[in-house]
Amino acid sequence: MTVADYLDIAAQKREARDKAFIGEWLIPDDALPQKDVKDVLTWAINSGYLAKREVAITESTLDELSEKIKNREWTAYEVAMAFCHRASIAHQLVNCLSEVFFKEGLQQARELDEYYEKTNQLKGPFHGLPISLKDNFNVKGQATTIGFVGFSFNPEKFESESLLVSKLRELGAVFCFKTNVPVAMMMPESTNHIYGNTVNPFNRATTSGGSSGGECALGALLGRCYLGLGSDIGGSLRIPASLQNLFTLRPSSGRFTTYGARSGLPGLESVASVNGPISTTMENLEFYCKNIVNHGEQWLVDSKCLEIPWREVILPEKLTVALLKDDGIVKPYPAIARALDQVEHSLKLQGHEVIGWNPLHHDRLTKLIGAFFLSDGGKHCKEYLNLTGEPVFDYMKPYESASDLPVSELWDLQTERTRLCNEYLAQWNKTCERTSSGKPIDAIITPVSPYSGVGIDKFRYIGYTAVFNALDWAAGTIPVTRVDKRIDKKDEMYEPRNMMDARTYDEYDADEVDGCAASVQIVCKRLQEEKVVKMMKTVSRIVGTHDYWSSSK
Amino acid sequence: MTVADYLDIAAQKREARDKAFIGEWLIPDDALPQKDVKDVLTWAINSGYLAKREVAITESTLDELSEKIKNREWTAYEVAMAFCHRASIAHQLVNCLSEVFFKEGLQQARELDEYYEKTNQLKGPFHGLPISLKDNFNVKGQATTIGFVGFSFNPEKFESESLLVSKLRELGAVFCFKTNVPVAMMMPESTNHIYGNTVNPFNRATTSGGSSGGECALGALLGRCYLGLGSDIGGSLRIPASLQNLFTLRPSSGRFTTYGARSGLPGLESVASVNGPISTTMENLEFYCKNIVNHGEQWLVDSKCLEIPWREVILPEKLTVALLKDDGIVKPYPAIARALDQVEHSLKLQGHEVIGWNPLHHDRLTKLIGAFFLSDGGKHCKEYLNLTGEPVFDYMKPYESASDLPVSELWDLQTERTRLCNEYLAQWNKTCERTSSGKPIDAIITPVSPYSGVGIDKFRYIGYTAVFNALDWAAGTIPVTRVDKRIDKKDEMYEPRNMMDARTYDEYDADEVDGCAASVQIVCKRLQEEKVVKMMKTVSRIVGTHDYWSSSK
Repeated sequence: MTVADYLDIAAQKREARDKAFIGEWLIPDDALPQKDVKDVLTWAINSGYLAKREVAITESTLDELSEKIKNREWTAYEVAMAFCHRASIAHQLVNCLSEVFFKEGLQQARELDEYYEKTNQLKGPFHGLPISLKDNFNVKGQATTIGFVGFSFNPEKFESESLLVSKLRELGAVFCFKTNVPVAMMMPESTNHIYGNTVNPFNRATTSGGSSGGECALGALLGRCYLGLGSDIGGSLRIPASLQNLFTLRPSSGRFTTYGARSGLPGLESVASVNGPISTTMENLEFYCKNIVNHGEQWLVDSKCLEIPWREVILPEKLTVALLKDDGIVKPYPAIARALDQVEHSLKLQGHEVIGWNPLHHDRLTKLIGAFFLSDGGKHCKEYLNLTGEPVFDYMKPYESASDLPVSELWDLQTERTRLCNEYLAQWNKTCERTSSGKPIDAIITPVSPYSGVGIDKFRYIGYTAVFNALDWAAGTIPVTRVDKRIDKKDEMYEPRNMMDARTYDEYDADEVDGCAASVQIVCKRLQEEKVVKMMKTVSRIVGTHDYWSSSK
Repeated sequence: MTVADYLDIAAQKREARDKAFIGEWLIPDDALPQKDVKDVLTWAINSGYLAKREVAITESTLDELSEKIKNREWTAYEVAMAFCHRASIAHQLVNCLSEVFFKEGLQQARELDEYYEKTNQLKGPFHGLPISLKDNFNVKGQATTIGFVGFSFNPEKFESESLLVSKLRELGAVFCFKTNVPVAMMMPESTNHIYGNTVNPFNRATTSGGSSGGECALGALLGRCYLGLGSDIGGSLRIPASLQNLFTLRPSSGRFTTYGARSGLPGLESVASVNGPISTTMENLEFYCKNIVNHGEQWLVDSKCLEIPWREVILPEKLTVALLKDDGIVKPYPAIARALDQVEHSLKLQGHEVIGWNPLHHDRLTKLIGAFFLSDGGKHCKEYLNLTGEPVFDYMKPYESASDLPVSELWDLQTERTRLCNEYLAQWNKTCERTSSGKPIDAIITPVSPYSGVGIDKFRYIGYTAVFNALDWAAGTIPVTRVDKRIDKKDEMYEPRNMMDARTYDEYDADEVDGCAASVQIVCKRLQEEKVVKMMKTVSRIVGTHDYWSSSK
């Protein structure tokens, strides 16, 4: 294919999507905030384009929506309308939607209303609740590009959908659109040749992150009703969630089905891609986890899913947390350091115990996971890129130059990874020697990335998240604060420890990232999803950010 | 190394082992049954070499042993003595032991007795119970050859042991020896250049099978006290268990820790090697599962282990079973067909429901698993063989000629495997359309292999077991009957469907395998270990073989 071809195909695809918006909702360019308006977080609500009732709906949690639909105060249809309308505005602000199917979603909502009217029964725990989907989930009748121009119309419409989508649909959830991702979902910034870059509503000069960037940019604009599903193989849920101060859970593999989703690296098993929820509230996040795990019966269809119900966890009154402030490889930016200090201070102030955490094997585990991503020599990615001959983003260059590893070497890397995982687990157990309870810690708290916001093309280091993918541990993010350029000043005397550290710190510019989000990561062991969710709730309460999205941001 | 060297090393290793036997127990060659005595199952008990009390001890189940140790009727020491003595005789009959450390085991038992004397406490649920180990488990102070001459003294003594061994030791189990395996544990017959071939006590002209062949040949001679641990990556527990009419459980990966065991294919993850118990009684097997899963806390140390307790399962009063009599690829031998008929008849007679089972993708799944085994081009195996230059057994020839697969191809095979697994699962679910309860079946019952006993060098087809490794489903074996050459006659009119089928059926010789064991396989879904164990108990009761090893064999 010629260069023109890939541009043509992309333009055609964009055009098809744009037609799916509802004309009367589209805001003229000159009425939108100008490009130099960076923070657009509250624009949708304050602009007057949303009706009061639409704001009320979208500012309700899933529990509240559910209650009001049940009580017939709101219909599923008007909930979906408000949801779509607000998403439409969000898209105009940050370019976050990929596939748009408002019409189908609204029709689905109408059918749910009719069903309820007729039977007096709700379809399930998700009856009438709109859920946002990252582009990799296949939806019946829609395409899935995962950022490849060659997948724009290939297939044009999926005939069957991802198991998680069909299960949620059975349980009453409503789907109206999907959100933008980077090519192959293997870049930390959500851009591609079809839809372009999704920017960050905290500061539109910065990236929304990736690969669940479209999801998180949208989420930050959608209010307390927001629940989105993203995926994570090296940080793809946690990185964008942290850059938008959202709550997310990266579960261990086996808790939430990934069956029938489209992958940029199909067949890779040395590290598992997982999916998880993203939300503006912990209530929504927990609502989702509990209901899909307990009612989805995912293991009946997905042979990789574990039949483990959503378990009750009781935390000790006095928490013990291990804090990692710096992995010794890349120093976090000032606002991240400040966020971690704030968490430490709040925990101690309320009588909890904080000990240090050694970033055991973080460097090597991050390298191993990188080797796994590239172990097919980029063959699958290149094949998809070659469908149209679209050019390769800089972030994806390693996939161009990688070599197709012999399996014998892969086995050796896997053996090493398993050994390091067990050593990491042993380090967790050994904390009992350092805690006053004599028991191991309840969680680790770490940066999500070095970045408290980051400009376009500058996200370079995923070590803080990728290590927990290598371990397959349960990890989440919670919001803490925002960058304040007056206090989050660069330490001009900092002496970097390596090239990556030097480049990263050098690129910090407080003016550039002013107002950006600063989150932290909370980590529990493998398959401790219930515990990490409970810790996220508890720590965000302690830090005072539990209601982050209902107060001013 | 020269040829002489590998023979020297093997001889040295054998000599070292032989010294570890207890001289007064050794039976002179001329007092042993002659080579042409094929069935030696009851020889040990009837020979007079075992004291009455030794017979009583070794004919007790673990529960009974536990009770008597607790009541101070028997000491752990005398239990271990009886166990070792009987194992010593068994070894002289079928050549089943690899590493022998009677002395250390007896010392361990003595310490347990002292501990009990002093504290009036048992060390744990396994206090004083001797457990047999397949050679791949590392034991402190012992070697692990897994059939490679090059591992004879490399290392000479392991300094740390497999997690399962150390956990069981903590819980009071006693270890006195390990059992023979094939090279790399990747042959269906337990032979190697160090210890030679382990033959089958049902009929010593036939193979004990592999790779847990040493274990199962021993088990059939050790009485009702026998509990051994083996491993299974393509049938290595079930094949030898079936050839010796023993009970075994091949669990799904994650239920029983494999951490710190030696592997012939280290780093292979496309299909997981698992370990599981083998026994002469279902009571022992269940005793082991329940206690190690509920008290072992394996997941605290092995990051691949799942924190799932041993769950109670209640079976419906009327069982529904899908029966596979022939996978359409290789026809089972007459006694296997008869065993399946007997199971079907008994089930129906007692009011249970039996439907058919389609061997969906069995051929392809078996081929895929073979491709995974060889995907490193045999590099790891060849490296270990090259340590001494020992020759390669015919069974291992594919490892010589295999090519080191590019990872890109491995990904495609893994994608295909996952798809087939989900289709298989869907077929299970769909049985609800064919059962009178409207629910899916409770289990599948299939042959374990085509063979009701098989001569040396003739075991060719592992499709009946390997498919469930590819699926990672829970599967077990139960004894049904023995070959009777008068009734298990070859069908001379049989028209084979392919080369493998032709060769296998052609090699059937009722005279050769007279008296050999005939078992069947019971299969439940992934991670349904509790259910398959319950099914094994129930079906063996229905078939009348629940007490197989306490009645005449």
